[in-house]
Amino acid sequence: MRKTTLAAIAAEAGVSLPTVSKVVNGRPDVSPSTRARVEQLLDQHQYPRNGQRAARRSGLIDVVFAGLDSPWAVEILRGVEEWGTERSIAIAVSSVRHGDARPASWTSAIASHHSDGVILVTTTLTSAQVVQLRGAGIPLVVIDPANTPPPDIPSVGATNCAGGLAATEHLLSLGHRRIGAITGPADMLCSLARLDGYRSGLERAGLTVEPALIKYGDFEHEGGFARAVELLDLPDRPTAIFAGSDQMAFGVYEAARQRGLRIPDDLSVVGFDELPVSRWASPPMTTVRQPLTEMGSAAAAMLGDLMDGAPLRTNRVELSTELHIRESTTVPKNPAEPENPAEPKNPTEPENLGSRKESS
Amino acid sequence: MRKTTLAAIAAEAGVSLPTVSKVVNGRPDVSPSTRARVEQLLDQHQYPRNGQRAARRSGLIDVVFAGLDSPWAVEILRGVEEWGTERSIAIAVSSVRHGDARPASWTSAIASHHSDGVILVTTTLTSAQVVQLRGAGIPLVVIDPANTPPPDIPSVGATNCAGGLAATEHLLSLGHRRIGAITGPADMLCSLARLDGYRSGLERAGLTVEPALIKYGDFEHEGGFARAVELLDLPDRPTAIFAGSDQMAFGVYEAARQRGLRIPDDLSVVGFDELPVSRWASPPMTTVRQPLTEMGSAAAAMLGDLMDGAPLRTNRVELSTELHIRESTTVPKNPAEPENPAEPKNPTEPENLGSRKESS
Repeated sequence: MRKTTLAAIAAEAGVSLPTVSKVVNGRPDVSPSTRARVEQLLDQHQYPRNGQRAARRSGLIDVVFAGLDSPWAVEILRGVEEWGTERSIAIAVSSVRHGDARPASWTSAIASHHSDGVILVTTTLTSAQVVQLRGAGIPLVVIDPANTPPPDIPSVGATNCAGGLAATEHLLSLGHRRIGAITGPADMLCSLARLDGYRSGLERAGLTVEPALIKYGDFEHEGGFARAVELLDLPDRPTAIFAGSDQMAFGVYEAARQRGLRIPDDLSVVGFDELPVSRWASPPMTTVRQPLTEMGSAAAAMLGDLMDGAPLRTNRVELSTELHIRESTTVPKNPAEPENPAEPKNPTEPENLGSRKESS
Repeated sequence: MRKTTLAAIAAEAGVSLPTVSKVVNGRPDVSPSTRARVEQLLDQHQYPRNGQRAARRSGLIDVVFAGLDSPWAVEILRGVEEWGTERSIAIAVSSVRHGDARPASWTSAIASHHSDGVILVTTTLTSAQVVQLRGAGIPLVVIDPANTPPPDIPSVGATNCAGGLAATEHLLSLGHRRIGAITGPADMLCSLARLDGYRSGLERAGLTVEPALIKYGDFEHEGGFARAVELLDLPDRPTAIFAGSDQMAFGVYEAARQRGLRIPDDLSVVGFDELPVSRWASPPMTTVRQPLTEMGSAAAAMLGDLMDGAPLRTNRVELSTELHIRESTTVPKNPAEPENPAEPKNPTEPENLGSRKESS
């Protein structure tokens, strides 16, 4: 009998029955030492927690965003929603706002509405939150973690480094030699990985990585605009800019327009994400596709396996990025700093042109 | 006793107990005549359906979109989510896809996971779906209905006609006389209301509404582009275009670019929605703000009242639109067809300039 067992555990632990119940249900208002003692007794008595959860499946999983103000949130959500629809699993959406007064409360909210599992998108995770979800027996998968998740938490990301490399090699193949980079915040893994790809591309081509051409933005339009202004105002401005997000690439477009520079003739621009809006840019934007919808589906599939108690094949899934060449990149008009001034290269020679695969 | 009553109703209706249970739970697999007979008996015996629902509140409401592929879906969702977070109500998201093989199944899915209420966004609603939700005792609010909802279903929209009027009067005040309009599909109320505002603006200014300057698009980028190409290829092309959505306005930007026309010097453009991406346009887009987030919150608040059994003050809420003037509109260079060719107006005279309120 379930109640007897919990009461026995309460007696053995020297706490009240409601306290044991709180631990079982993953509620936060229990001291760590009490929780540890009760958890140990639950294990010892083989209290059937997972089986119990499976029996009271709510048919609902949660997707928690770092804010619903990015256009890529809905791309990820679409992938999760498609997975849920096929399985008649409802998808609850919430967001942890910047500067939220209740930064940790989402785990309590989720535990209280009996979520079957959680997908956390691009937000930081404290160890207290991990403990709380574990205590409630709620499986967790993270997408594109901002900080390094504990190694045992399954996560889904994109091949950010390969994406940065593809963007840079595309620009190099067109003949660009002075290529600016605007990546995201310096403390985000995905941001650094995109920049690593850029550096790697330059180094493979035997070019020096110039610190003056590297800027850290915020992944948003404003930061892209401000950093692009800095790059375009350099005495020896770049002929191309790789932006670490489409939003920042839109900011580069506007900085170019304000300086009377036409894209792509005066400045080539590559974005990152391939949001639907990148097709609306004028000219349509060359960008590195991050498979956001597929990342949502992949995270949901991993979560489904965890909910079923099935073993995961891997704790980390990275989906491929892919360069989509549209109309914001072309050969440079005035290649800056030819490598050998005495024998300048002609970057418009056909053999220097990368094969341009068209993309709608 | 509940079971006795349902059994009695089953006996009286001459159907099985599971059939009565299906009607009570709003399941679809009951014939209309049986459902009507059982509903009548439930009413007659004052079977406590609403009270019963309130007692088993799930703390979950559903938002159903016509597809999660529009960037404004997430704007509406944010408003609903903010409302839900304050009340610890979870928000489940689903989408009814275009050409979905299961067009009616969402009502069954919602009834089966014990939703406390439904917000339906810009999608059509069949009377069978209304009956099914009512049968399950699930309150419903619709946002910006594509077709006319039954008059007793609460709905939320924006002042589309006033928005179309504000866009047109802004262009008129700058001196434009040939103003093209690209609205959405001819069978959507919000699309027609925006066009009504345009017509009304021209008529108030004493101008003739020219059918050749009116185009019906699809609210999407592709349609905006194709219709703008038609307008710009007219022998006497418009000096300004009012697009019924920001997405279509982006299409107008691209059509202008492909013809070598600069915005705003050669063509003024006004959008509609004020999506976050409208700020990323180059130049930043003048557009009519539709308060999507507030519409989401308003719909959720109405639904909350219905869930509490509180009376609604009104069955229809329309939130105000507001013109945001940015950099895609200016005085026309060559005003086409001055009203009196013998005495041409100079539209660049200060008194013809509308007051330009700056917007970020």
